[in-house]
Amino acid sequence: MTDASVHPLDQALRLAPLGEHRFRGETTAPWANMVGPFGGVTAAVLLRAAMDHPERLGDPLALTVNYAGPVAAGAFEIEARPARTNRGTQHWSLAQHQGGQLATTGTAVFAVRRDTWSASELTMPEVPPAAQVAIAAPRQGLEWPNRYEMRFVEGDWPDLEAGDELPDSRTAMWIRDLPERPLDAPALAAICDAFYPRVFRRRRRFTPIGTVSITTLIHAGAATLAAQGTRPVLACARGVSFAQGFFEQRAEVWGDAGTLLASSIQVVYYRD
Amino acid sequence: MTDASVHPLDQALRLAPLGEHRFRGETTAPWANMVGPFGGVTAAVLLRAAMDHPERLGDPLALTVNYAGPVAAGAFEIEARPARTNRGTQHWSLAQHQGGQLATTGTAVFAVRRDTWSASELTMPEVPPAAQVAIAAPRQGLEWPNRYEMRFVEGDWPDLEAGDELPDSRTAMWIRDLPERPLDAPALAAICDAFYPRVFRRRRRFTPIGTVSITTLIHAGAATLAAQGTRPVLACARGVSFAQGFFEQRAEVWGDAGTLLASSIQVVYYRD
Repeated sequence: MTDASVHPLDQALRLAPLGEHRFRGETTAPWANMVGPFGGVTAAVLLRAAMDHPERLGDPLALTVNYAGPVAAGAFEIEARPARTNRGTQHWSLAQHQGGQLATTGTAVFAVRRDTWSASELTMPEVPPAAQVAIAAPRQGLEWPNRYEMRFVEGDWPDLEAGDELPDSRTAMWIRDLPERPLDAPALAAICDAFYPRVFRRRRRFTPIGTVSITTLIHAGAATLAAQGTRPVLACARGVSFAQGFFEQRAEVWGDAGTLLASSIQVVYYRD
Repeated sequence: MTDASVHPLDQALRLAPLGEHRFRGETTAPWANMVGPFGGVTAAVLLRAAMDHPERLGDPLALTVNYAGPVAAGAFEIEARPARTNRGTQHWSLAQHQGGQLATTGTAVFAVRRDTWSASELTMPEVPPAAQVAIAAPRQGLEWPNRYEMRFVEGDWPDLEAGDELPDSRTAMWIRDLPERPLDAPALAAICDAFYPRVFRRRRRFTPIGTVSITTLIHAGAATLAAQGTRPVLACARGVSFAQGFFEQRAEVWGDAGTLLASSIQVVYYRD
């Protein structure tokens, strides 16, 4: 069921409460990946369940999502259980089941933010503003990338026929939801996974891959995210270590004012 | 109970199986932190529970530990439940309870590693070999740092009376267990947390802090870790963003042959 008046991301994040910390959701065709749904949207819908929970405290601070098994097109169930609530932090246990089988596990931490001394030791890369960077052409044969407007500063989708190895796997892109949608924590969590697999760029050839686990730290509270509005954010990723069938990808997402909105690391399975 | 013939780390990681995915453990005095046990050892004992589990498949690949509440001196119970076992990966749900209350949540992924194409985009910092770096003096008034031999190349324990701010919070140190102990995944997971709080260095003053969540990716299988033996590893950390009461710390641990053994990110609460 697609409701044209609802944004595709909000459609994918729609949850019906079932009580007892359980929620019913459904995959949507616009977010299809090669197999199953885009992992970023799976992360976002787990986070959404905790955000929708009546016992929720504060805003998302940390999210770990482990992709334990495939998710098929159709209905699924999410369990978002507040495992412990403190004065300023709240710890969540997350799981996604489909057809009675566990597909995804996870944890989240929510926090009440307060104004404090602040500093950053990482600076946003110097890149041209989004308006000066061309919008990438739509992807053929893959749905989810077309839910984003992507403007590549560095590391566009690689030519997988080239076959010769590149010395790095860096990508920097201005990105926003398509159609435009005000940024919030689930959208940001999804963007942290919106990079094509780093091993594709390093090797410039296709190889079967699958994200195993992603952890995202959200550095901005709801007000900072709301202030970003619908303007593109700068999303940067790189591969770190590729060894024995698993590689690490690190990513940062920056607001256009130069604020680090999120950091993310993931480990991805690759074949040969 | 301390058994002098057992290494302090192995003493802290001793678990008695209780059946039904549960294990009984106990805090030990040598690993005491300012409040409760050193978080690195809590991470290690959760990982150990999964490694000790009779259904275990493969070696640790990813570990997330969320410090939900305080752990007091004494007995605790760990639940390590294999949530889903695939052909080459295994997903674990982890929890630590004490006195009937949830103290820690977590997840882990184990994997069967295979020889594949490999590469690295991160290079070990150029530092003098461990033998050329002085061993740091023991810490007064804090137990757990004295379970390590630390040789600081950069970013030694800061003078918390200085009070003036430093421009960065980088630390690089050669580190190993004290007494010497062959490296394994739990020891490595603990070392990923063996940095004093980055906010102490940035601000050169004491402020109450507490790690909220740590995620460690282990890039080396058991054979690579065993080959490191008891020689020091190079552990590097930096603060990334300090904002609204929470900061991010990233760390890498390198084998002395220049192999990335582990990457870690954590988010830490700080006051004012």
